[in-house]
Amino acid sequence: MKLATIRVGGGTRAVRVDAGAAVELGAADLVEVLRRPDWRAAAAAADGPAHPLDGLDYAPLVTAPEKIICVGHNYRDHIREMGRELPEHPTLFAKYSRSLIGAYDDIVLPAVSEAMDWEAELALVIGTEIRNADEDQARAAIAGYAVLNDVTARDWQYRTLQWLQGKTFEATTPLGPWLVTPDEAPATSGELRCELDGEVMQRTDLAGLLFTPVELVAYLSKIITLAPGDVIATGTPGGVGHARKPPRYLTDGTAVTTTIEGIGECRNVCRREKA
Amino acid sequence: MKLATIRVGGGTRAVRVDAGAAVELGAADLVEVLRRPDWRAAAAAADGPAHPLDGLDYAPLVTAPEKIICVGHNYRDHIREMGRELPEHPTLFAKYSRSLIGAYDDIVLPAVSEAMDWEAELALVIGTEIRNADEDQARAAIAGYAVLNDVTARDWQYRTLQWLQGKTFEATTPLGPWLVTPDEAPATSGELRCELDGEVMQRTDLAGLLFTPVELVAYLSKIITLAPGDVIATGTPGGVGHARKPPRYLTDGTAVTTTIEGIGECRNVCRREKA
Repeated sequence: MKLATIRVGGGTRAVRVDAGAAVELGAADLVEVLRRPDWRAAAAAADGPAHPLDGLDYAPLVTAPEKIICVGHNYRDHIREMGRELPEHPTLFAKYSRSLIGAYDDIVLPAVSEAMDWEAELALVIGTEIRNADEDQARAAIAGYAVLNDVTARDWQYRTLQWLQGKTFEATTPLGPWLVTPDEAPATSGELRCELDGEVMQRTDLAGLLFTPVELVAYLSKIITLAPGDVIATGTPGGVGHARKPPRYLTDGTAVTTTIEGIGECRNVCRREKA
Repeated sequence: MKLATIRVGGGTRAVRVDAGAAVELGAADLVEVLRRPDWRAAAAAADGPAHPLDGLDYAPLVTAPEKIICVGHNYRDHIREMGRELPEHPTLFAKYSRSLIGAYDDIVLPAVSEAMDWEAELALVIGTEIRNADEDQARAAIAGYAVLNDVTARDWQYRTLQWLQGKTFEATTPLGPWLVTPDEAPATSGELRCELDGEVMQRTDLAGLLFTPVELVAYLSKIITLAPGDVIATGTPGGVGHARKPPRYLTDGTAVTTTIEGIGECRNVCRREKA
């Protein structure tokens, strides 16, 4: 089952994305759906107003999640190629919801940054409130998987030792187009790819994740209650622009395509913000 | 004017805290109040049900803010005594709303941490949506000031280079008891103090802040839209437990008192979580 949030008229609607149409679920956004204890059955059975798939205007998959938790240094090959030891604990940082954009929205390149970079990632969305979960509970709490690009202002990220300020610029982070439930996409393997204007920049397999989605959910739930709609971005592999020689960054008009085999694809064009 | 969120029956209510009583503002929490464009006049004029001040049960000042943004390394004397250069940019990190507790609630010492530390801080709350603000706009967007203690799991904070995991444990961060509007408390000077069982651990003056509240608001608004109810914690001075020789941490039963002259006081007792 695929679930999404689309823009309709002046608002948004949560929908189930079927092969032939998107069917409304009777909620303004996917977080509202996921807060219903029986959301799986209710979403599967919903038969609200239908929208043709052609030309659907995808909002961020979740418009105002309680948390967006991001993971760094999480692909084995990339860690080793950088000459680092495999870490014992996941590296965690945050992002705020106003950084999110829809699957086909423009990525805003801030007027104040000269070093916007791409980071294709697998995201997961929480579907059940959990705290201190074991791995079985963590697995059951994953509503599904989606595509995210943790677009990063490198010049701001490295201003201080903490990365937040480079990670949460307004309207920079595609998340979508839909969530795919784990029965359709277990996300244990499959190609993750980022292309700029058709040129492949990042390509890896999800099997290379050091901390798996289930392990991350269990770990995070030891710190704080995870709630329906919470987003966890699982980290990016090698191939980002900042590590290239010479470095390469996003420019006005660049088409960024972020794809995960069996899950989905975000296609976003970069637009430089007016100063 | 002092505004707060209190627990009443099974829910919460936003109130104005007068000299003799707390008067309901017709909203479930302070964020809801601050989202009204005319909140200053409406809150000043409100004459809803009144509650005696004695025994008020303060909820976190804002129960579910869109953002909690924290600042590190922001007191001049403390930076210099650590032998560091004054930084050019504020160090920023995040905290999630489920870490917040009320002004007199217990601080939960997580079963998984052996190194919970105190960090008394001035917090400010945003009262107007702003983006790319200049300093005048930033000043006008500050709804008011409150007391916060950024209680931190040092053992988790330093597991990786990113601090988030030590900063956002469930039910660890007192915020309250009330917000004081800038006309009553400009927060440009005044003593900030943290005591453990009556012993002073941190004592400084707000005048020692390197990046002032107004400068922080203007800076953050270049990154992302700030929204009513957003909390900015402005950093802690010297005197934390981790920097002591030997280090000292919070233990079950310790009373933590966090006070800012002219603003307010949080009084919280530490309770060790059952494993």
